[in-house]
Amino acid sequence: MEISKLGEFGLIDRLTEGLKNVNPSTLRGVGDDAAVMHYDDDRDVLVTTDLLLENVHFDLTYVPLKHLGYKAAAVNFSDICAMNGRPRQITVSLGISARFTVEHIDELYSGIRLACERYGVDLVGGDTCASHQGLVISITCLGDARRSDIVYRNGARPTDLICVTGDLGAAYMGLQLLEREKVASAGQKDFQPDFAGKEYIIERQLKPEPRTDIVEALAAAGIHPTAMIDVSDGLSSELLHICKQSNTGCRVMEDRIPIDFQTAVMAEELNMNLVTAALNGGEDYELLFTVPLTDHDRVSAIPGVKVIGYITEPSEGCAMVTRDGGEIPLRAQGWNPLAEQGE
Amino acid sequence: MEISKLGEFGLIDRLTEGLKNVNPSTLRGVGDDAAVMHYDDDRDVLVTTDLLLENVHFDLTYVPLKHLGYKAAAVNFSDICAMNGRPRQITVSLGISARFTVEHIDELYSGIRLACERYGVDLVGGDTCASHQGLVISITCLGDARRSDIVYRNGARPTDLICVTGDLGAAYMGLQLLEREKVASAGQKDFQPDFAGKEYIIERQLKPEPRTDIVEALAAAGIHPTAMIDVSDGLSSELLHICKQSNTGCRVMEDRIPIDFQTAVMAEELNMNLVTAALNGGEDYELLFTVPLTDHDRVSAIPGVKVIGYITEPSEGCAMVTRDGGEIPLRAQGWNPLAEQGE
Repeated sequence: MEISKLGEFGLIDRLTEGLKNVNPSTLRGVGDDAAVMHYDDDRDVLVTTDLLLENVHFDLTYVPLKHLGYKAAAVNFSDICAMNGRPRQITVSLGISARFTVEHIDELYSGIRLACERYGVDLVGGDTCASHQGLVISITCLGDARRSDIVYRNGARPTDLICVTGDLGAAYMGLQLLEREKVASAGQKDFQPDFAGKEYIIERQLKPEPRTDIVEALAAAGIHPTAMIDVSDGLSSELLHICKQSNTGCRVMEDRIPIDFQTAVMAEELNMNLVTAALNGGEDYELLFTVPLTDHDRVSAIPGVKVIGYITEPSEGCAMVTRDGGEIPLRAQGWNPLAEQGE
Repeated sequence: MEISKLGEFGLIDRLTEGLKNVNPSTLRGVGDDAAVMHYDDDRDVLVTTDLLLENVHFDLTYVPLKHLGYKAAAVNFSDICAMNGRPRQITVSLGISARFTVEHIDELYSGIRLACERYGVDLVGGDTCASHQGLVISITCLGDARRSDIVYRNGARPTDLICVTGDLGAAYMGLQLLEREKVASAGQKDFQPDFAGKEYIIERQLKPEPRTDIVEALAAAGIHPTAMIDVSDGLSSELLHICKQSNTGCRVMEDRIPIDFQTAVMAEELNMNLVTAALNGGEDYELLFTVPLTDHDRVSAIPGVKVIGYITEPSEGCAMVTRDGGEIPLRAQGWNPLAEQGE
């Protein structure tokens, strides 16, 4: 069905039909000039926003719309987790070009709604308009946390342990695989990409999960990280943010960086440097945080958390300690779309 | 200067340099994974968002970037006013295509920052990335209000008075004038558009002002509107929203609709129907609200507020009463970008 048949208000009615708010902090969602929330007096409010543009952040030739919607919501939830908070509400703005049908937008929205349901987040508002240019997705997420629980990037101190969740580099290798199959499929009808044995890295690229479980686990373990950030641009880039804002240096142990088997196989197959992928790949949406040395045993006991290094005095600089004991300075080689633009 | 020279983080540092937060509710602004706010326990939190796309919502051949920034912020503040709240914080996401220089983005941001300063709003976050498509601006605004002060669209009751602030149709006629001069200038070098005597309608189009003054005046007068909305899509469309959500009808008096002299002159010059422009023009960002009949004298005493009609039973439908006593049904002929798209 063409979107113009429904018009803006008809489309919004369709997309928001049956929405139910699950958070007590949501008083009024979609349907007025603004949504209305109330947060308990012991809570601070967190807000973060992400803008996703077609052919910059995603390529619809291999990203299914439902996955795209899920990811667009999930990456915002991840930013709230990175403050040690819980995501509560999102607004979703869409710029839709004429090649999309109502069914396409239904698909996209079903992914957004699935992510909201899974993480207990209310979709409370947004804006929907035509785009002459391609799909535009802008999501803003509100969350909350007790003030004493909030973790900034600037609290790391020398001797603190550097911890990371999950594994790194898989989303990047998944992207490389998708790009390879896109090239291979060019001009071929009914091309069947070969993803056998590589499901994990594809899923990491297409459907990242925010680590709300880690936020819960840290609280349960009584651990208050001194600094935290989520890994969207790559481990190197994020560590440099923490060290710059905390005025420290750091050492990361190459042999401690968690890497999945499929990531390693794919790097081998593509003849790419595995550690570079893990350091600079980005889009893992894992949590990178620092804790006092005294938390070593408690933090190591949390499943999925790995200690990968330590914070130093700023004069030591930021470096990776290689397997042979050498040191390589960390550089922010992460994904920098503003240096790559092609228009 | 090319933006790629600065990179994303360099550009953000430059744009957010010297930002000072003025609202006590802003605890931490730009610079971490999320901004942090705390609202007093007697306040509810309002959130609204708008997405503006180049060549859909604005045309840079005649919209100066500074005005565009100002307007992008102002229209969000207006949505908070329409809830009878005060705007407090915004996040700004930009998608920037390669034809823009750092100085262009400085200009855009100077308009956003001017609007923030003028209305006491803190710029607390955002996202900046490359666009292959044209300029993308997504702004989300947070505001607050006491729960008892919040006004929704659904509270209008039969016999309530319909009130509107300022005057209507000027922004639309300003747009017509800008479009006319754009056509006239096509292919001409050093073309000087002729806006003499039409400054007001140009300003209404390029630099709308949110009616925070009316929110203050209503509070000072002890008036609590029963329903409220801001006029972004046109008087007809907004009145129909109020009547639909309140389950009422309405009558608007043609001869009570406030229209500025320049709006009338421009309509005459372009041979357009003046009342149609005022009813359906949109982008006025005035406040449209209803009050109980008993508030007539108090509301009429507020400068810039005009009573233009009254709410009826739903069976009466929604209509304009013409000067000769006839009735014309109101229709939502407002700006509907999803029915107009051209890709």
